[in-house]
Amino acid sequence: MTEEQIRKILEEHKAGGLSSDDALRRLQSLPFEDLGFANIDHHRSLRQGFPEVIFGQGKTVEQVGRIVESMHKHDHNILITRSSAAQFERVKQIAAEAEFHEGARAVTVLKDQKTYGKGTVMVVSAGTSDMPVAEEAVVTLRVMGNSVDSLYDVGVSGLHRLLDRRERLAAARVLIVVAGMEGALPSVVGGLVAVPVIAVPTSIGYGASFNGMAALLSMLNSCASNVTVVNIDNGYGAAVVASLINRQ
Amino acid sequence: MTEEQIRKILEEHKAGGLSSDDALRRLQSLPFEDLGFANIDHHRSLRQGFPEVIFGQGKTVEQVGRIVESMHKHDHNILITRSSAAQFERVKQIAAEAEFHEGARAVTVLKDQKTYGKGTVMVVSAGTSDMPVAEEAVVTLRVMGNSVDSLYDVGVSGLHRLLDRRERLAAARVLIVVAGMEGALPSVVGGLVAVPVIAVPTSIGYGASFNGMAALLSMLNSCASNVTVVNIDNGYGAAVVASLINRQ
Amino acid sequence: MTEEQIRKILEEHKAGGLSSDDALRRLQSLPFEDLGFANIDHHRSLRQGFPEVIFGQGKTVEQVGRIVESMHKHDHNILITRSSAAQFERVKQIAAEAEFHEGARAVTVLKDQKTYGKGTVMVVSAGTSDMPVAEEAVVTLRVMGNSVDSLYDVGVSGLHRLLDRRERLAAARVLIVVAGMEGALPSVVGGLVAVPVIAVPTSIGYGASFNGMAALLSMLNSCASNVTVVNIDNGYGAAVVASLINRQ
Amino acid sequence: MTEEQIRKILEEHKAGGLSSDDALRRLQSLPFEDLGFANIDHHRSLRQGFPEVIFGQGKTVEQVGRIVESMHKHDHNILITRSSAAQFERVKQIAAEAEFHEGARAVTVLKDQKTYGKGTVMVVSAGTSDMPVAEEAVVTLRVMGNSVDSLYDVGVSGLHRLLDRRERLAAARVLIVVAGMEGALPSVVGGLVAVPVIAVPTSIGYGASFNGMAALLSMLNSCASNVTVVNIDNGYGAAVVASLINRQ
Amino acid sequence: MTEEQIRKILEEHKAGGLSSDDALRRLQSLPFEDLGFANIDHHRSLRQGFPEVIFGQGKTVEQVGRIVESMHKHDHNILITRSSAAQFERVKQIAAEAEFHEGARAVTVLKDQKTYGKGTVMVVSAGTSDMPVAEEAVVTLRVMGNSVDSLYDVGVSGLHRLLDRRERLAAARVLIVVAGMEGALPSVVGGLVAVPVIAVPTSIGYGASFNGMAALLSMLNSCASNVTVVNIDNGYGAAVVASLINRQ
Amino acid sequence: MTEEQIRKILEEHKAGGLSSDDALRRLQSLPFEDLGFANIDHHRSLRQGFPEVIFGQGKTVEQVGRIVESMHKHDHNILITRSSAAQFERVKQIAAEAEFHEGARAVTVLKDQKTYGKGTVMVVSAGTSDMPVAEEAVVTLRVMGNSVDSLYDVGVSGLHRLLDRRERLAAARVLIVVAGMEGALPSVVGGLVAVPVIAVPTSIGYGASFNGMAALLSMLNSCASNVTVVNIDNGYGAAVVASLINRQ
Amino acid sequence: MTEEQIRKILEEHKAGGLSSDDALRRLQSLPFEDLGFANIDHHRSLRQGFPEVIFGQGKTVEQVGRIVESMHKHDHNILITRSSAAQFERVKQIAAEAEFHEGARAVTVLKDQKTYGKGTVMVVSAGTSDMPVAEEAVVTLRVMGNSVDSLYDVGVSGLHRLLDRRERLAAARVLIVVAGMEGALPSVVGGLVAVPVIAVPTSIGYGASFNGMAALLSMLNSCASNVTVVNIDNGYGAAVVASLINRQ
Amino acid sequence: MTEEQIRKILEEHKAGGLSSDDALRRLQSLPFEDLGFANIDHHRSLRQGFPEVIFGQGKTVEQVGRIVESMHKHDHNILITRSSAAQFERVKQIAAEAEFHEGARAVTVLKDQKTYGKGTVMVVSAGTSDMPVAEEAVVTLRVMGNSVDSLYDVGVSGLHRLLDRRERLAAARVLIVVAGMEGALPSVVGGLVAVPVIAVPTSIGYGASFNGMAALLSMLNSCASNVTVVNIDNGYGAAVVASLINRQ
Repeated sequence: MTEEQIRKILEEHKAGGLSSDDALRRLQSLPFEDLGFANIDHHRSLRQGFPEVIFGQGKTVEQVGRIVESMHKHDHNILITRSSAAQFERVKQIAAEAEFHEGARAVTVLKDQKTYGKGTVMVVSAGTSDMPVAEEAVVTLRVMGNSVDSLYDVGVSGLHRLLDRRERLAAARVLIVVAGMEGALPSVVGGLVAVPVIAVPTSIGYGASFNGMAALLSMLNSCASNVTVVNIDNGYGAAVVASLINRQ
Repeated sequence: MTEEQIRKILEEHKAGGLSSDDALRRLQSLPFEDLGFANIDHHRSLRQGFPEVIFGQGKTVEQVGRIVESMHKHDHNILITRSSAAQFERVKQIAAEAEFHEGARAVTVLKDQKTYGKGTVMVVSAGTSDMPVAEEAVVTLRVMGNSVDSLYDVGVSGLHRLLDRRERLAAARVLIVVAGMEGALPSVVGGLVAVPVIAVPTSIGYGASFNGMAALLSMLNSCASNVTVVNIDNGYGAAVVASLINRQ
Repeated sequence: MTEEQIRKILEEHKAGGLSSDDALRRLQSLPFEDLGFANIDHHRSLRQGFPEVIFGQGKTVEQVGRIVESMHKHDHNILITRSSAAQFERVKQIAAEAEFHEGARAVTVLKDQKTYGKGTVMVVSAGTSDMPVAEEAVVTLRVMGNSVDSLYDVGVSGLHRLLDRRERLAAARVLIVVAGMEGALPSVVGGLVAVPVIAVPTSIGYGASFNGMAALLSMLNSCASNVTVVNIDNGYGAAVVASLINRQ
Repeated sequence: MTEEQIRKILEEHKAGGLSSDDALRRLQSLPFEDLGFANIDHHRSLRQGFPEVIFGQGKTVEQVGRIVESMHKHDHNILITRSSAAQFERVKQIAAEAEFHEGARAVTVLKDQKTYGKGTVMVVSAGTSDMPVAEEAVVTLRVMGNSVDSLYDVGVSGLHRLLDRRERLAAARVLIVVAGMEGALPSVVGGLVAVPVIAVPTSIGYGASFNGMAALLSMLNSCASNVTVVNIDNGYGAAVVASLINRQ
Repeated sequence: MTEEQIRKILEEHKAGGLSSDDALRRLQSLPFEDLGFANIDHHRSLRQGFPEVIFGQGKTVEQVGRIVESMHKHDHNILITRSSAAQFERVKQIAAEAEFHEGARAVTVLKDQKTYGKGTVMVVSAGTSDMPVAEEAVVTLRVMGNSVDSLYDVGVSGLHRLLDRRERLAAARVLIVVAGMEGALPSVVGGLVAVPVIAVPTSIGYGASFNGMAALLSMLNSCASNVTVVNIDNGYGAAVVASLINRQ
Repeated sequence: MTEEQIRKILEEHKAGGLSSDDALRRLQSLPFEDLGFANIDHHRSLRQGFPEVIFGQGKTVEQVGRIVESMHKHDHNILITRSSAAQFERVKQIAAEAEFHEGARAVTVLKDQKTYGKGTVMVVSAGTSDMPVAEEAVVTLRVMGNSVDSLYDVGVSGLHRLLDRRERLAAARVLIVVAGMEGALPSVVGGLVAVPVIAVPTSIGYGASFNGMAALLSMLNSCASNVTVVNIDNGYGAAVVASLINRQ
Repeated sequence: MTEEQIRKILEEHKAGGLSSDDALRRLQSLPFEDLGFANIDHHRSLRQGFPEVIFGQGKTVEQVGRIVESMHKHDHNILITRSSAAQFERVKQIAAEAEFHEGARAVTVLKDQKTYGKGTVMVVSAGTSDMPVAEEAVVTLRVMGNSVDSLYDVGVSGLHRLLDRRERLAAARVLIVVAGMEGALPSVVGGLVAVPVIAVPTSIGYGASFNGMAALLSMLNSCASNVTVVNIDNGYGAAVVASLINRQ
Repeated sequence: MTEEQIRKILEEHKAGGLSSDDALRRLQSLPFEDLGFANIDHHRSLRQGFPEVIFGQGKTVEQVGRIVESMHKHDHNILITRSSAAQFERVKQIAAEAEFHEGARAVTVLKDQKTYGKGTVMVVSAGTSDMPVAEEAVVTLRVMGNSVDSLYDVGVSGLHRLLDRRERLAAARVLIVVAGMEGALPSVVGGLVAVPVIAVPTSIGYGASFNGMAALLSMLNSCASNVTVVNIDNGYGAAVVASLINRQ
């Protein structure tokens, strides 16, 4: 489109139907996105197997329904994070293949089951209470076309559970490590592997855990230099970055 | 003394040299400590092999000198924490046997070398920069009559260094675990032993370590239930509690 | 088992049915816990009179039921912390001897009533509102085989209530001191006894108590050097450490 | 002056030299302070034995000199808080009777030695390191005409030192209690007396004392209901309020 | 009683019915409060017109009922702070003269209507939403025998409302200033009067008021040196201190 | 009135019915607001097209009703912020022209539809969840007589949406930029325009957004020097300042 | 330039020396700023009397010298904030008319003395210690072509100093109010005027002022709705916004 | 070695020189690292072109010298972060090819100049003051064998500088975005590219930047889902993770 718009201006100008001043003005005022900027490329690349994502929390059943109806026309997977059973009911009316992942609080509509990631992404979590966040990461990874392995309840005060699976850890191309309370797991896992580790602090804990602050600070200060951190409870964000790495 | 004071009052009263009212008044106004309260017992028990302790920081060379002169009359060990070379020079003039522990920033005067602890206290630290705090604990433990083992530079991102010494860890009766940055070490050590672990956060780190806050919060939220915590950089306090446990 | 696995490899190798290379590989890949590492010892020692513990909060009645069914086969005591009346009803169906400690929000199943602790653990609390946390400590101590004494409502603004019981304080081998608001009680108690004091800040208070933060900071900065601290409201953790000390 | 201004307007108006409108306008535009508002009264009452006060910190020797020269014309006491030896040298050239209180970091020029307070103000401090703040309070109290008693180094972990002097505590009409670290002393003192206690947190401590934050929060959450709090290290402010109470 | 106990021991000893050793032991073990310590005096002075106070929040209707039943035997006023309509209903069954102060969330039983305070205590509040805290102060002041004046809704962005009443402000012997949001009112009022000002931050506000933290910090940093501060929403505590000052 | 009062005093004095001393005293004690001070002028200017504003939250339906009844007698617009459907129902009974703006949680009664602002105020918001705050700003701006443009859902991770409308941005005389999460939008918008930008952080976000704290800090540290900030979620306040600027 | 570049492409294309494809490609790849986007306009408007500004702190004397040399070719005023005497010496070698404003820590080179602002900007500060920040605002305002009035040392605890100058306050078109400690001044000033007030918290204070945090929070929670806030100590930023408003 | 140790045990056992029990015991007690655990693999992979790294800060010139002497025997690159000119002088004596990167505060010894990364890593920074952190990342990336592009001083308030280079941004395989103050740059860059963005907050800023806290929170709350975060000022850590991604 943009190209055509520019060509049209150039041609009108060449043909004399447009003065230099007018051509100049029209070129200057072209809508930004029409110029083929990075965002367009960005969108294009994101669409290669990436789902269209809705943040379900705070949206009404109707709002979610309308958005899904519009998305359902394309062939991409659809992901609704922080969703509810009620939202799921509405989505299923639109897309019969929709699934509700209760643990992950997520709804998915899978249309494209191709694997885009080159290797396996492993999701490790410290305690059973961290599982909703870990599951959100797993569901997101799957809907983005990754092969996923997961390892739950391997907190650092029982190291043997973790060390016992060191081969599975070593086989991953990227790891997402989810932990609340003292948030020590990413440092320990980071020391056992030679690939990027994405740490997700959770709001699990009580007292001086301050809703995930303790775990977050712990992870930011990790002595393992292959660890980066995302926001508290942000299993989705960790999975997006892991997917990007896994496609490279 | 107190006993004698009370006996004296009782006797004077019995002998008639003291009216009931006067005896009553004098008994009520006896100095508190003379009544044999817990503090006295406390002091007594503390003196059994416990050093007399001076917090050196903020005190002048003269002040430290005067206090040591007064303490030197007794047979107890003397410990000056957060001390300096200048304070040490002054102390050596008073007590020739004084030693300066540069790493620990401590001065000791050893007079009583008896071992009071029943087992070994182990001091574990995460990084080389945590060593001043770990050394303060070690010096305090020694001067309080404990058998001490120490293990430095065993951060959680290199687990093999720690696991390799698991037998030494298991041999300790109490452990002091010193760590800055993410403060994850006490949780890991806590899971490897079945005795009390005293965690000491250090102010080592940068950025979001907030001068030890990250390590402190991490330790308070430890998933290992045999961990208690002392103040940031408080190697001395950890050693006092470890000594108390080791004597029981 | 592990021993048998290793012996089997050694024998097959000796008998010639296993090449050196294969024996090497199999030895290297043995599951970690099978090697008889510290964790096993740790578990063994923990089992000597320690209950099997479930964190009830956030678990469904069914989940708690399933875990208790599995635990009930062993002879250890069972403890469910942060539990509910509904969870208790389910547990009673499995173990008729189950008891609900409403104040402590805990369920216990007592099978082993042996006393493992060498002395008495005393639980002291500042205000009546701190009692749930204190009671959690008391129940945990009992189920772990300790002789327990308790002293409630002895806040520092009414010292006589505390000083009046100094003999009971002095008789304890370890003390747990529970306080919200300004959290001053552990420092005062610490000065009256010569044994370890485990301080538990509670979330009791309002305004600038910041859900226990004020009490926590106060305790970490205690001028009594025999005080260590656990997380806010963590009566259970304090009792575990006190039990470990009391068995030494 | 103000009175004269108003009288003059009234008289000019009466005499006919000033129309009603003009008199009105001039009365409305008189400088505020000339109207004899509360502030004036406030100043007046403050001057009854209250010193003129300079905050020395951040002021040059010359600036302090100029202010003292101007103040020295009146008969009031002069107080320079957070002062230095250099500032003192300059002040002594102006007022030979000036004194430097090194511990309190204060300079005083005493001209009015009358006692204005009705009773004794007692200053209690927890540790020797809290003394500069306590001394600032003492110097301020003296220069404001109070009878002062002081009691240092009576931290809550050694209660007998405090209880021993309960009669002196009970004799005070107001108390200022200065403490760093865990800041527990005001609560304990508050429970021993029946008069107002002004708590001053100090920045003394390390680690999780956060420059006085721990002590401040502790004092704000005091379980003793006769305690109010001033800013960290604000010995001067506490003394001003104590003086106001002591004059009532 | 205590006196009698001591006299009895003295007499038995004198009479020979008690050996010196036994007399000594019994004297040492007398209950602390029996020795006539400060706390007794404290209690005595507190009782002179001070109500017996119950913190209603978190207490059941029955608990409040039982406490009131026990208190009702004495002639002191009774005050229940943070109370509820349900608690009031129960109290009225016990004490027909009970009143419920809905704004203040307080129940009072007035038996002693004598005025103990020497002057008037003024309660000033910034906004209408701060009124519950201000009202708690007013009710407490009244039940403690003070003459009370109050001035509501005089926030600092509308100074004329405040300045207009400067005579009433100047007439008070102590002031309690209640403010949420930016907490500026105590500084302004402090500058208008020459008596102690007790500042009460409230949790009123939103966003960066952080539940009263902004107001609290503002008040602690007041540039008026006659201001002291109590905990957020602590109208009761402010009234206790004001009463103590007002009786001097 | 005031004028009359002063005139009366002047005249009585002139007429001799009032001594100079009495005239002086009466002039000094005139109620403050009667002197025609700035506040009056302030009120006057505020009334020029500014609505009378009620903060609805925490007020009962009756309270809001009574205030609106009293306001409805004047010709000014009425604005109720943080209002509810129930409050609206009551207001409509009083003022039939009342409107409820659900998104903005606001009720308006428009009587004066004149445009007072000289240009357009633009309201820009980052995400759809920030809309209630943005809408509060829009409603306030309209009721204060501004021409308003708005641009929603132009977060900084999709710059083209923003750059595309740069002409509309450039046309505004003042901008209000509303953003939660990382709060980056005001800096970006600030760099695109040459007029004042008022930044409104919102409490939208989760985890380390700390209820708007992250956005607030981000905005205060803006690298664009034409940005000032109001409290979290304070769309109303931003609109008041924007209106003041737009009238100049 | 840009225009010429585009015209040149258009003409070459029209003349046939450039194919449509080549013209298209060249138009698409033109440097962004050449397209006449908002930033250019922004820069243009900023240049109308706005100085070129250097943040001096952290820059070497040479770096500042080189930047000033380059700027000195234009006719705009030059402003160096957070500058030093050493930087000033270097600047004077380049621009003889340079001035050093010691209080404001700023260097100015005035070339354009035209007044661009429509009215007066008033700078009000609470204490003498806040003056460096206030002076930075004043210098910035002057160099940006504003008429400036200033009023220092009018803290809220001495209201008469402020009220006395209410006419000068009322005469300003915008106000900048600078305050440390409790930061109450902007609320008070905001209530006295009917124009925008820009509040600047300063890092002045001690203890719980937390380097300006207390003042910042206070200002964000202002009950005066015409107040917006900039970063702590940001006198420069406040002056930029005030200048923008003053030119409208 | 390990292999040989195990083989030796196996052979001794096979040969009969070692009983089954002894072989078992020796196998169980082999040093942990000798068993070929993940850490070894980890080290191996890290060595493939990864430098040996020393944290220079806090180390003496001698300590750094000794470590470099030991490292210099291998063929790996050497990197000293947070280093000094004095440390560099010592290193140059050992390794003549050493270079000092003043901006980055780093010393490198390059021996292996092979490129290991598959694409380009781009380092983007917001302001000139953020450059030391950005340079640390660049030096680390180079010494780890990456092709590096960098783009400095492209803060979000001047978007054209950034948008102008969008093609270079789009060409990167991973991006490191360094920003202080409001930390908004990673969100903006994240929206322009489709690859992982590692955000590094810096401690640059003043006032409410709280030494990088504002930037850190901003980045953790990024609305761009391809952003992860490392510790404040941790340019080194960001480069390690970027290198790991770039090799995949």
